[in-house]
Amino acid sequence: MGDTSGERTRMAEIAQAAGVSVATVSKVWNGRADVSDRTRERVEELLRLHGYRGRRAWPTESAGTIDVIFQEIDCAWEGEHLRGIEAAGHEAGVRVVVSSLDRGETARRQLLQRLRAGRTDGAILATLTAAGPLVTALNRLNVPVVALDPTCRTAGDLLSVDAANFAGARAATAHLLELGHRRIGLIAGFDELMCSRARFDGFLAAHDDAGLAPDPRLIEHGEFDFPSGVAAGGRLLDRDVPPTAVFAMNDFMAIGVYEAARIRGMSVPGQLSVVGFDDLPGSRWAAPPLTTVRQPLREMGALAARTALGLAEGGVLGTDLVVRESTAPV
Amino acid sequence: MGDTSGERTRMAEIAQAAGVSVATVSKVWNGRADVSDRTRERVEELLRLHGYRGRRAWPTESAGTIDVIFQEIDCAWEGEHLRGIEAAGHEAGVRVVVSSLDRGETARRQLLQRLRAGRTDGAILATLTAAGPLVTALNRLNVPVVALDPTCRTAGDLLSVDAANFAGARAATAHLLELGHRRIGLIAGFDELMCSRARFDGFLAAHDDAGLAPDPRLIEHGEFDFPSGVAAGGRLLDRDVPPTAVFAMNDFMAIGVYEAARIRGMSVPGQLSVVGFDDLPGSRWAAPPLTTVRQPLREMGALAARTALGLAEGGVLGTDLVVRESTAPV
Repeated sequence: MGDTSGERTRMAEIAQAAGVSVATVSKVWNGRADVSDRTRERVEELLRLHGYRGRRAWPTESAGTIDVIFQEIDCAWEGEHLRGIEAAGHEAGVRVVVSSLDRGETARRQLLQRLRAGRTDGAILATLTAAGPLVTALNRLNVPVVALDPTCRTAGDLLSVDAANFAGARAATAHLLELGHRRIGLIAGFDELMCSRARFDGFLAAHDDAGLAPDPRLIEHGEFDFPSGVAAGGRLLDRDVPPTAVFAMNDFMAIGVYEAARIRGMSVPGQLSVVGFDDLPGSRWAAPPLTTVRQPLREMGALAARTALGLAEGGVLGTDLVVRESTAPV
Repeated sequence: MGDTSGERTRMAEIAQAAGVSVATVSKVWNGRADVSDRTRERVEELLRLHGYRGRRAWPTESAGTIDVIFQEIDCAWEGEHLRGIEAAGHEAGVRVVVSSLDRGETARRQLLQRLRAGRTDGAILATLTAAGPLVTALNRLNVPVVALDPTCRTAGDLLSVDAANFAGARAATAHLLELGHRRIGLIAGFDELMCSRARFDGFLAAHDDAGLAPDPRLIEHGEFDFPSGVAAGGRLLDRDVPPTAVFAMNDFMAIGVYEAARIRGMSVPGQLSVVGFDDLPGSRWAAPPLTTVRQPLREMGALAARTALGLAEGGVLGTDLVVRESTAPV
């Protein structure tokens, strides 16, 4: 905030509307910690309404830093996303600071305090769950925030970088239908995630395209990890009339289906075709190599970094079906 | 550098010894860019000899940041190491900045420039290859540097965090010998890496403990990745008298051996026992789940972060043999 008389007037208006002193508005604006959460929220909301938001209002001096916020740093999407983010950060000459929220409330508070203090040029939110309260808080800050692979509908009006989840799931399902499969099991992910819903819609659309309807008894849910894939795959294979193919909404669960089949002495793809989603490096090393939908995870990370720096506007990147050896004619 | 008369005298001595002005010594000390590389190296070496090195000489004000330098950000060790580093950084209230060197010389120069300018409290070097020149450069800087899983002998006098590679490889090999295997193939890694040598020595020691000698014709080399494991495993299995078990120096190569066996219609562990090293998450999801040597990768990352911050002195963390389903009696 400069000190032109117009801005002083506006600050006074905000102070009056919030029922606080101009000094308090200034404290909030400057990210000081000695303001109650309630007051801060009210003032931030008013600042936002008055247009003090986003890069134009942000100090012009770069902090030389972008923040990446993961739910958990894991050997899954995170590594690939981070690789793209780091490359784009390097190209722009900024440092990439990595945070994880898996230590809960303290981690979230520490992070918000730092972002509030303005020591970052932008934040990339790459977190699957529990994003709601964080997004609400970030929305009120003057930090450019990008949702990477936004998984909650609450992402709201944030810029976002996403993959073509619907198209990918439709292609995966169509591939199985073209191989003659008619009893296709689905292992869905968390229903509250946008990517899960889009992939589910793609699964339905492919059936619809073929004039077919999926059997609701062949739909199971997992938690996007290996053990839940083993469990859900096992439930499908133990049906009286089991599916001849399974589409799992990510690679970890697909590899879990391999294990469920192996335990039951069934061969992939001889007795069961399996398709995943993501194309993580490990899917090429599975035995047999996994047919899956490739998400351009690195490219998504790089686009998110450029968006956080105001060099891009987010977007949806395409997915590709990668046919390997885990699918065969029925 | 303070301005006591003793320090001024020492600076003058260093300037004289280096054949430069006191102003140039000061520039080098303050990380300014306008000094030639040759001059900088000479002055840094002299500063180091005069004891201007390590945390005692470092500005007492914290930068609130530690740097992690990877060769490449990959979904392998890196994610696990980073998880531990981030947790320890969070606990100490410092940010974790991630860099990768896979863009070559520019990346290295940018990084060194930032470290020289002192905007970090410490650096963790977690890079497999090409560490030599970087270590030489870092050795001359006044940044506390920790080598995480140091892989080059050139790590020299850096503090380091390591895993018990020798003991792990000895336990893995002893496990196969106890199952009755006498023809044990070895897929070694890069010979120039300290971890490879220690694991090789462990392999020999286990044979020696049992009064046996390994067959040199059953020793192959890989590059610590899946494709080289498939290739090296294939070469072993295509021998006139193939091994009945294979110890691969990491999990990726071990999973590659699975694929080499699968292509040849051989079952694991029915016709071939396989042991890996690392215990990456994927080793639990392999079919069958992989017997491997667990490296405490997260704990190693956390210890490296604490060491970089001067809160620990590095060290060697224990490894454990994790027996799963890829090994069976001969």
